[in-house]
Amino acid sequence: MGKETQAADIYLRKAEELAAEFAKDAVERDKAGGTPKRQRDLIRESGLLKLIIPSQYGGDNQPWSVALRIVRELAKSDASLAHVLGYHYFMVVQAHYKGSLEQQRFYYRETVRNNWFWGNSSNPLDRNVIGRKTAEGAVLSGRKGFSSGSTDSDMLLVSWNDDKTGEFLVGAIPSSRDGIRIHEDWDSFGQRQTGSGTVSFEQVQVAEAEILDVESRRPFAFSTIDPILSQSILANIFAGSAEGALAEAKQYTLTQSRPWISSNVDKASLDPYILQQYGEFWTDLKAAVLLVEQAALELDELWAKEFALTEAERGEAAVTVATANAFAAKTALAITGGILEVTGARSTASRYGFDRFWRNVRTHTLHNPTVYKLRNVGDWVLNDEIPKPSLYS
Amino acid sequence: MGKETQAADIYLRKAEELAAEFAKDAVERDKAGGTPKRQRDLIRESGLLKLIIPSQYGGDNQPWSVALRIVRELAKSDASLAHVLGYHYFMVVQAHYKGSLEQQRFYYRETVRNNWFWGNSSNPLDRNVIGRKTAEGAVLSGRKGFSSGSTDSDMLLVSWNDDKTGEFLVGAIPSSRDGIRIHEDWDSFGQRQTGSGTVSFEQVQVAEAEILDVESRRPFAFSTIDPILSQSILANIFAGSAEGALAEAKQYTLTQSRPWISSNVDKASLDPYILQQYGEFWTDLKAAVLLVEQAALELDELWAKEFALTEAERGEAAVTVATANAFAAKTALAITGGILEVTGARSTASRYGFDRFWRNVRTHTLHNPTVYKLRNVGDWVLNDEIPKPSLYS
Amino acid sequence: MGKETQAADIYLRKAEELAAEFAKDAVERDKAGGTPKRQRDLIRESGLLKLIIPSQYGGDNQPWSVALRIVRELAKSDASLAHVLGYHYFMVVQAHYKGSLEQQRFYYRETVRNNWFWGNSSNPLDRNVIGRKTAEGAVLSGRKGFSSGSTDSDMLLVSWNDDKTGEFLVGAIPSSRDGIRIHEDWDSFGQRQTGSGTVSFEQVQVAEAEILDVESRRPFAFSTIDPILSQSILANIFAGSAEGALAEAKQYTLTQSRPWISSNVDKASLDPYILQQYGEFWTDLKAAVLLVEQAALELDELWAKEFALTEAERGEAAVTVATANAFAAKTALAITGGILEVTGARSTASRYGFDRFWRNVRTHTLHNPTVYKLRNVGDWVLNDEIPKPSLYS
Amino acid sequence: MGKETQAADIYLRKAEELAAEFAKDAVERDKAGGTPKRQRDLIRESGLLKLIIPSQYGGDNQPWSVALRIVRELAKSDASLAHVLGYHYFMVVQAHYKGSLEQQRFYYRETVRNNWFWGNSSNPLDRNVIGRKTAEGAVLSGRKGFSSGSTDSDMLLVSWNDDKTGEFLVGAIPSSRDGIRIHEDWDSFGQRQTGSGTVSFEQVQVAEAEILDVESRRPFAFSTIDPILSQSILANIFAGSAEGALAEAKQYTLTQSRPWISSNVDKASLDPYILQQYGEFWTDLKAAVLLVEQAALELDELWAKEFALTEAERGEAAVTVATANAFAAKTALAITGGILEVTGARSTASRYGFDRFWRNVRTHTLHNPTVYKLRNVGDWVLNDEIPKPSLYS
Repeated sequence: MGKETQAADIYLRKAEELAAEFAKDAVERDKAGGTPKRQRDLIRESGLLKLIIPSQYGGDNQPWSVALRIVRELAKSDASLAHVLGYHYFMVVQAHYKGSLEQQRFYYRETVRNNWFWGNSSNPLDRNVIGRKTAEGAVLSGRKGFSSGSTDSDMLLVSWNDDKTGEFLVGAIPSSRDGIRIHEDWDSFGQRQTGSGTVSFEQVQVAEAEILDVESRRPFAFSTIDPILSQSILANIFAGSAEGALAEAKQYTLTQSRPWISSNVDKASLDPYILQQYGEFWTDLKAAVLLVEQAALELDELWAKEFALTEAERGEAAVTVATANAFAAKTALAITGGILEVTGARSTASRYGFDRFWRNVRTHTLHNPTVYKLRNVGDWVLNDEIPKPSLYS
Repeated sequence: MGKETQAADIYLRKAEELAAEFAKDAVERDKAGGTPKRQRDLIRESGLLKLIIPSQYGGDNQPWSVALRIVRELAKSDASLAHVLGYHYFMVVQAHYKGSLEQQRFYYRETVRNNWFWGNSSNPLDRNVIGRKTAEGAVLSGRKGFSSGSTDSDMLLVSWNDDKTGEFLVGAIPSSRDGIRIHEDWDSFGQRQTGSGTVSFEQVQVAEAEILDVESRRPFAFSTIDPILSQSILANIFAGSAEGALAEAKQYTLTQSRPWISSNVDKASLDPYILQQYGEFWTDLKAAVLLVEQAALELDELWAKEFALTEAERGEAAVTVATANAFAAKTALAITGGILEVTGARSTASRYGFDRFWRNVRTHTLHNPTVYKLRNVGDWVLNDEIPKPSLYS
Repeated sequence: MGKETQAADIYLRKAEELAAEFAKDAVERDKAGGTPKRQRDLIRESGLLKLIIPSQYGGDNQPWSVALRIVRELAKSDASLAHVLGYHYFMVVQAHYKGSLEQQRFYYRETVRNNWFWGNSSNPLDRNVIGRKTAEGAVLSGRKGFSSGSTDSDMLLVSWNDDKTGEFLVGAIPSSRDGIRIHEDWDSFGQRQTGSGTVSFEQVQVAEAEILDVESRRPFAFSTIDPILSQSILANIFAGSAEGALAEAKQYTLTQSRPWISSNVDKASLDPYILQQYGEFWTDLKAAVLLVEQAALELDELWAKEFALTEAERGEAAVTVATANAFAAKTALAITGGILEVTGARSTASRYGFDRFWRNVRTHTLHNPTVYKLRNVGDWVLNDEIPKPSLYS
Repeated sequence: MGKETQAADIYLRKAEELAAEFAKDAVERDKAGGTPKRQRDLIRESGLLKLIIPSQYGGDNQPWSVALRIVRELAKSDASLAHVLGYHYFMVVQAHYKGSLEQQRFYYRETVRNNWFWGNSSNPLDRNVIGRKTAEGAVLSGRKGFSSGSTDSDMLLVSWNDDKTGEFLVGAIPSSRDGIRIHEDWDSFGQRQTGSGTVSFEQVQVAEAEILDVESRRPFAFSTIDPILSQSILANIFAGSAEGALAEAKQYTLTQSRPWISSNVDKASLDPYILQQYGEFWTDLKAAVLLVEQAALELDELWAKEFALTEAERGEAAVTVATANAFAAKTALAITGGILEVTGARSTASRYGFDRFWRNVRTHTLHNPTVYKLRNVGDWVLNDEIPKPSLYS
């Protein structure tokens, strides 16, 4: 076993410990919503925030496949915390491919030094934050929704449209910056502790150095990998949610479920239909896991190429990730919705929280529609067309 | 149009009015759980409680098809209230096929006179209530779960096992009888306002006349139609839930959904995939509605035969109802889980409560497993075996 | 039982007899392809060719629901013969809604008198037959494919485009007309005895009176019901094919299938998974049958309205039929493909011909894509848009 | 790239060449059935028959993953030839795990020397061949069905039951041995050129040395891997059939399919529903390929362990292979049945043979029922029970 793998194992152990801890009150916290402050602090203490950051900046230099594996592990017990950690990784690397070398260095180094937990308020479909150019940088005002991971964050990736040109700009600033208000108003039926609500900006100053130098990176395919990263993270959350649902169902079937009165078996775990259904769940789930793992390795290669990445390579990777994401979404919906059939009527009691897996996956799979990912995959299969780089492809 | 149909229409109008009223705060009440006292009183005031009772006792003498149609109507906005009304009908007729003629008369007449709302605490799989025979009747002690409609009920169908013989007995008594305590402890993730929690019994007196004379009715196939009635009620709740989900989704897609960025259409309602999905929902839903309606007509015939019903006729009807129930269950799960795909990410906001349809159907379809109903149907199709009368077939 | 129903029963009996006769060598004839001359003559002798023709012209005046029921019955054993009879009905009524009153009378009366069996060579998507206007009518030359029922036909509905104006015209002429050559070149993997191959025309004379007076009928919605009729016929063939497949599977499972070695049952007919699958087949099939039957009754109403039919009524009926057709297609594909799972490995022997059901349905469901029918249904459900009258909607 | 991989690539190239050659008349040969003599000779000439045989006996010493990859490659154009080559590998290694070391050596060495093509007549469920023990070995009489690869074979694996003890015995003898008659009577609707018909035995002599020494191997888990090998081979044929179907469909859609009249696109390859469907096919197919490839690597490890293999390891591998097989079966059925929807009505013409993929997969997936594999997988997932070694698990 090579050294890098050993390191990966160490991080996976940490993730397993966190997942076990999160599991203790996952059901209650799902009901409560809001910000899982204690759990976020446990993530901070785990050292996992710097996992993806290169060694030269003090990070652990782990590949994306390890980061995604950890996200998947957390999703087994808590898809919200998996999401905020996954998006932390997503945000912390923004300057790497959209910023100048100085910005990359600065944000990496300072993240390690301060153990920053990143969130975002940068949904590009929401054009309600307007920035005015100034001598020192820009001043932002407005509100932005879907700001996942913003509550209790240390740093925020923010985006705005220029008041004159309409240009879309991206910056990275402390969440405590004057004029920022992070509303705790996320209230969906799923992914309830992701803090994906509104952030409002009132005359918020962004220094020139904090505005990512997207312009200089635009010629490179590497600068357009946002959807590849976000869809990879989500795919792993879907797969992990399904794994977690199946594991909890198993415990329940084994210890609580009663055999159906006309089943002619003594234990629910011997019911032929229940066995078949576990077999189907597993078969699909294993396929999903293989797909997300293979996509993660392809992402590792893509990431290693950095600005040498070609458009064709970027396109192939986008297809690979879309494939994994679409399959994981379908599978996770089927499993998280289906487990109740192998646990039975009494397992619907609120205290088990067995519906939360489905609610989480149902909510999260709407982030960008599966059917349009399938269309893109189909266009590549049939017409050899790689997806046009965009916000979601 | 015949007179009976006109009457049916009048009752359907009432049901539509109730459904509209229930819709106003269905989302909030789903969150709150507990007993929908005001809504139950509206049902009381609507006059619908006596719908199924023969004219000679002052009832409206409507056939089961009308009762089920009303249940389905209510389920469009509130599956819990549909359930408690459906089970009210189920309970109010118990003495008709399990009791003596005197009992039938008494309970019908008194229900009309007092506008009783019936609930139950008679789950036969739960053997925790024990009855001791006395000179006057029986004395019950213990607890029983899954007592749907017990909270705020006027009358309760109760069941117990005899402490000596183990014999399973059924009685009908006022919910206010000394020693009865109705716990408000139902807390599942679905069907949250059905009050399906625990009822405890402490030395509860049941008079001889209140114990249904099941013994005298046992020779008749008619006395074994419990599962035909309960599965008919549930099938209509499933179908109605799907209809309600689709109707709410439609309003949302038309007024709130945004076209997907790569869809090349101006409105979500023109998206080819969304149109296809509405087409699929409708196609399956219409099939489900035809099945439950056809089954309801067959139930009307069965009911009209009363004690002349043969075992073969009872068996055929059981297959018809199981078929409708299984199909409606499958369809309702698919539609209530799928509507989010035609409404989109922002429709997951808690205030819309769009997950409640799925939670309700998911919970309720576990009442008795669909796969065992399919097995029974298959045994009839393949081996010409009608289902052996039992609690669930 | 009313007199009309009795008549319907008589025709259904005849159809059952034909179906039983066709079943005898359906497997061999499927392999052989070509024209089932003897079977077509049995149809001629059955008297069923005049079924749909009004009494005043000597016909049996049966509604479409009876015609479709007969088509479905034949499809149980032979979907090709069901198709040619269904399309005979479709062709024989063309003059009724696209022709003048004289044409209607003529073709109805002569069909009865001569016991004509109609076929067609009128696929409107195929524009290779060109007509030249003459003083007496038109002269046609060219070739047309997908000419279902043309082989061994007595009369042909033909269509062409005018050489000058491109106008699409339709006529009805004897198949023996000089210059017509009916090629026996239909060779698809399904619906193999429908004779759906090429007809070539060499200077074929069509008299003015034989050219349907479509122009005068164009203002009426009734003149645009082609797709409603054709999709109704196909929907019934799909449903009947599934019924036939299930019936043959049942016989095989009961008499030939061996229990799987690890099933712990003595007979395949007791296998829990096989029972479940029969239950699923039945559940879906019954839904399909209810849908096609309800659509047939709606078609009866539409047909009775004739030229008083409004566009809105026509639109609603088109949706009803598309719904039934799409559901029947989906169900028939699932059942005809799935029966092998309940019959087993040895049932794949060619002599049973158990694949022919799937091949027939697979071929026939491509006639016009289900997904576009679903889109139309969805457009009606979501946007209250009725389908724009066209060749396929 | 390591040397072994290069070797693997060379063999894959050969397989691709064969597949291309077989594709030329695959449609005609499917119709004809019978024995593809010329193609079998091409396999003989390709050198691939000794691929799996260890170097010390003159073989190419390739792992099972390479053999299976080749089988999958052939299945893209001809699932029958893929099957007979796959089963050749299966038969050629029988002595390796069921015979003495001498038998292993003999059959391996002689296979290389004579370039033997193996077939079988050893279906254990068919107990019609009876053997009488003699001083020199045994004398067999009777008939055995499902003898895949028997026609045109050089060697046959045969099995019989002892006339006294009923014991099940296995031997390996030349196909030309006196008294053997290989009937060309395989006539199923799928896998038509596998020669899986009957072999009859009339007083056929089997020498002692030709009877595999199963007894001495029985204590070892390695001797029970028959189902692991056969299910691996089938899983790859399923996956390859789906890949081939998709590739042919793609060419047709691109070059032949017409856009649907209401699709508003110029080319079928731009139709949104067709793109989606290609995306779905691909997504599932890629999952199937990953599963069979991962299972093949696990089989390589199992094979390398030989008689050191533990029951637990054997059990885990059996689950892995069952998982891959079940998923590949489901996917291959969906894709081979679905491609017609993306090619359209005219693609049903017999000359394209597009139904053969489905017929092959439908036939072959009945070899042992998927649902029982799922049950076994479920038993492992839920109860941690590994499959009890048997003929099919």
